[in-house]
Amino acid sequence: MTEHFDVVVLGGGPGGYGAALYGAAAGLNIALVEAEKVGGTCLHRGCIPAKELLQTAEVLRTVRGAKDFGIQVGEPTLDLPASMARKQQVIDKLTKGLESLLAGRNVTVFPGVGSIVAASAQRVTVAGTELTGDALILATGSTPRVLPGIEFDGERILSSDHVLELDRVPQRTAIIGGGAIGCEFASYLADVGSAVTILEALPAILPGVDPQAADVVARAFRRRGIKVLTNVRVEGVDGESCPTVNYTLDGNGVSLEVDAVIICVGRSPRSEGIQIEAPEIALGIGGHVVVDAHMRTTIPNVYAVGDLVDTPALAHVGFAEAIVAIKDILGEEAKPIDYDKVPWGIYCHPEVAFSGLTEADARERGYDVVTSVHRFGGNSRAILMGETDGLVKIVAERDGPILGVHFAGPWATELLAEGYLAVSWEATAADIGALIHAHPTLSELFGESAMALTGRGLHG
Amino acid sequence: MTEHFDVVVLGGGPGGYGAALYGAAAGLNIALVEAEKVGGTCLHRGCIPAKELLQTAEVLRTVRGAKDFGIQVGEPTLDLPASMARKQQVIDKLTKGLESLLAGRNVTVFPGVGSIVAASAQRVTVAGTELTGDALILATGSTPRVLPGIEFDGERILSSDHVLELDRVPQRTAIIGGGAIGCEFASYLADVGSAVTILEALPAILPGVDPQAADVVARAFRRRGIKVLTNVRVEGVDGESCPTVNYTLDGNGVSLEVDAVIICVGRSPRSEGIQIEAPEIALGIGGHVVVDAHMRTTIPNVYAVGDLVDTPALAHVGFAEAIVAIKDILGEEAKPIDYDKVPWGIYCHPEVAFSGLTEADARERGYDVVTSVHRFGGNSRAILMGETDGLVKIVAERDGPILGVHFAGPWATELLAEGYLAVSWEATAADIGALIHAHPTLSELFGESAMALTGRGLHG
Repeated sequence: MTEHFDVVVLGGGPGGYGAALYGAAAGLNIALVEAEKVGGTCLHRGCIPAKELLQTAEVLRTVRGAKDFGIQVGEPTLDLPASMARKQQVIDKLTKGLESLLAGRNVTVFPGVGSIVAASAQRVTVAGTELTGDALILATGSTPRVLPGIEFDGERILSSDHVLELDRVPQRTAIIGGGAIGCEFASYLADVGSAVTILEALPAILPGVDPQAADVVARAFRRRGIKVLTNVRVEGVDGESCPTVNYTLDGNGVSLEVDAVIICVGRSPRSEGIQIEAPEIALGIGGHVVVDAHMRTTIPNVYAVGDLVDTPALAHVGFAEAIVAIKDILGEEAKPIDYDKVPWGIYCHPEVAFSGLTEADARERGYDVVTSVHRFGGNSRAILMGETDGLVKIVAERDGPILGVHFAGPWATELLAEGYLAVSWEATAADIGALIHAHPTLSELFGESAMALTGRGLHG
Repeated sequence: MTEHFDVVVLGGGPGGYGAALYGAAAGLNIALVEAEKVGGTCLHRGCIPAKELLQTAEVLRTVRGAKDFGIQVGEPTLDLPASMARKQQVIDKLTKGLESLLAGRNVTVFPGVGSIVAASAQRVTVAGTELTGDALILATGSTPRVLPGIEFDGERILSSDHVLELDRVPQRTAIIGGGAIGCEFASYLADVGSAVTILEALPAILPGVDPQAADVVARAFRRRGIKVLTNVRVEGVDGESCPTVNYTLDGNGVSLEVDAVIICVGRSPRSEGIQIEAPEIALGIGGHVVVDAHMRTTIPNVYAVGDLVDTPALAHVGFAEAIVAIKDILGEEAKPIDYDKVPWGIYCHPEVAFSGLTEADARERGYDVVTSVHRFGGNSRAILMGETDGLVKIVAERDGPILGVHFAGPWATELLAEGYLAVSWEATAADIGALIHAHPTLSELFGESAMALTGRGLHG
């Protein structure tokens, strides 16, 4: 049996369901193939469960800090199974919501693993049914990457998937990789009582983040008792009852005994099937599907989006790529994504968020750079919240547009929305400085930073 | 003794200290006259203490809701004196910060009540010293308004000043006036255990707020046990041991016995002194100093800003007006403030924030209006926070710019920053819809609302 659709989408994560929802809203008849529940890594094993657990950690911190506000309350204890059950409820609710949205737009969801029969004819099979499309969108996502010589066992050596399903808090945890995901887990586990050590190969955690913002996290982590080790070369993990991480630091070999090792060294595109079934679809060195700025693969009418392609592995980038692909399929003009400007949010405590160039990037590209850094320590709302750790940094071209905005501190991931707008619209500091920021808000600090670049700050 | 300055400023609240800081940053020599500590109503008896108490209420709510996250903790109790002490510490810290800022910019602060000697010569006296300026800025602020026939006694009949200094929580509280301040106090007092009744003269609380956003608050208040009575005519307050509010509702006279009555019916400009000392400065009917779009009074070189003039009584409007006045004094082009677009933030739970026109305003002005309303009930981050009450509403001209943005719900006062930028820059829904919002964030809901207006929503 063959069914024909305007678009067949392989994979039901943000890239895939984003394409289905946006395409259906534009009137296209869409088939969405997904082996598990719709929602993908983001909803089931990524952003959503991680942020739910980080929200739990925030509630725990708030309870512990309540006495500062004159609120008398006993020591809180975390019931991890109850917490994990809430996390699952959140996932279930969002999954149901997504299923209804897809159903409401008449997207046909085919459960099962899709296989490509003929890429050039946009033909796939799933559970015995053959689907053809005028276009095919590949959105099969990614899986956690492992280190050579180390294998996940789900007990002592954990991937991010395992951390999100813990049934007890490891007393001592080593996190290999101090990127966004590693730092989110470090923050969470420290809050729930684990003694955490981060082992980062590079000279600082959060590579890619502006060093002044990353430093806010590194300092806060150290104050919270998280060991942050950088320039570390991990040699391997062994040990019987407890795993032992062997690493080299400053030329010295060290063995660190812990109760769990979490490996957060990135994700690999899930492209093995594509490689076998449709070798004519070009892959890059890392296994990513090669696409142009309109998400077109090397085969006509076949697109790829999301973690499968070599762009920032962020759910919202998947959404944006899905929209570009659908617009291209519709024959509409699709503006390519400016990957330099996409918003990044890291939900550790303190949060980090940014868009655009770091100061170093901007200098490297030859801009005459000016910067403005303002700390939450002087911000009214941060003071009254008791969350004064962090900063706003604006990187701008002298007498020119804002090139990058960097937030670390309370609600950074939400404050970014305004900064991202400024970067996307190439606003100048004077454009922002002329505007009014409500008082008392955290977002005032962005206004202050912009005003300061005009030479006339109000508070800063 | 006479001292001469470039600018003499009467009043050390946001309008006054804003003028001093901005003027000094521009190189002007400034005298700032203030009878109490610098900071004004906002810092000492307004926004800051109110928001600090509301933050305490939020911590209390978080502790009470911790079990939803699997966090076991006993019932919290509020130590009101300790809470009030923290509030005072916040005020003191911000006051010190402001004093250092002023000192750092060589603003000369004259303690005492300033009197105008000769407005046309910009001459004032303070504590025996005569000050003259090339310009004079009046920024004497406002005081809580009372109802005819009712007087504040600080025990049973309270102004906002008194509420911020409570030494115990009244068991039963009547709040006369359901505007922004009344709703903030209602929210706070309900959280700390008072049985609150709001008595509002108009058909709905939060007049001026888009009714859909105001309704979010009204419903949430009722769920929390706050009695919200509208179309109420307050006849008077009497009673010996307990105050009794007499009011008429639906033609029936009612007597409501409570433990405290809070009157929140607005603020009056503090212009009595000006009226006596400088009657040539024109005042409006409500006692506000009359100014043009550049904050000039009817006397050359004399300006007025902040709550003293008939514009929104918001600290950040005071700042903005101060900047306009200083620019005008400097002979620079000062763009008049677009009061239609200034950001408003209301810090009750749930929060409300908006900028630009309500739907009704926009229709009344003859726009061909389209709207888009999206609820936090479908937003990932709101769901994982457990704060799904609220909405984002965009009011736009069909195929034209966004005219108004209205937020009710979690962190509305911070989410507004992005919406305000969109309104200020007259962005279209398509402009916003083309941008990427980070996932999972509350600010995504604004992106969704904008996308929906383009006819192709992603999640909504």
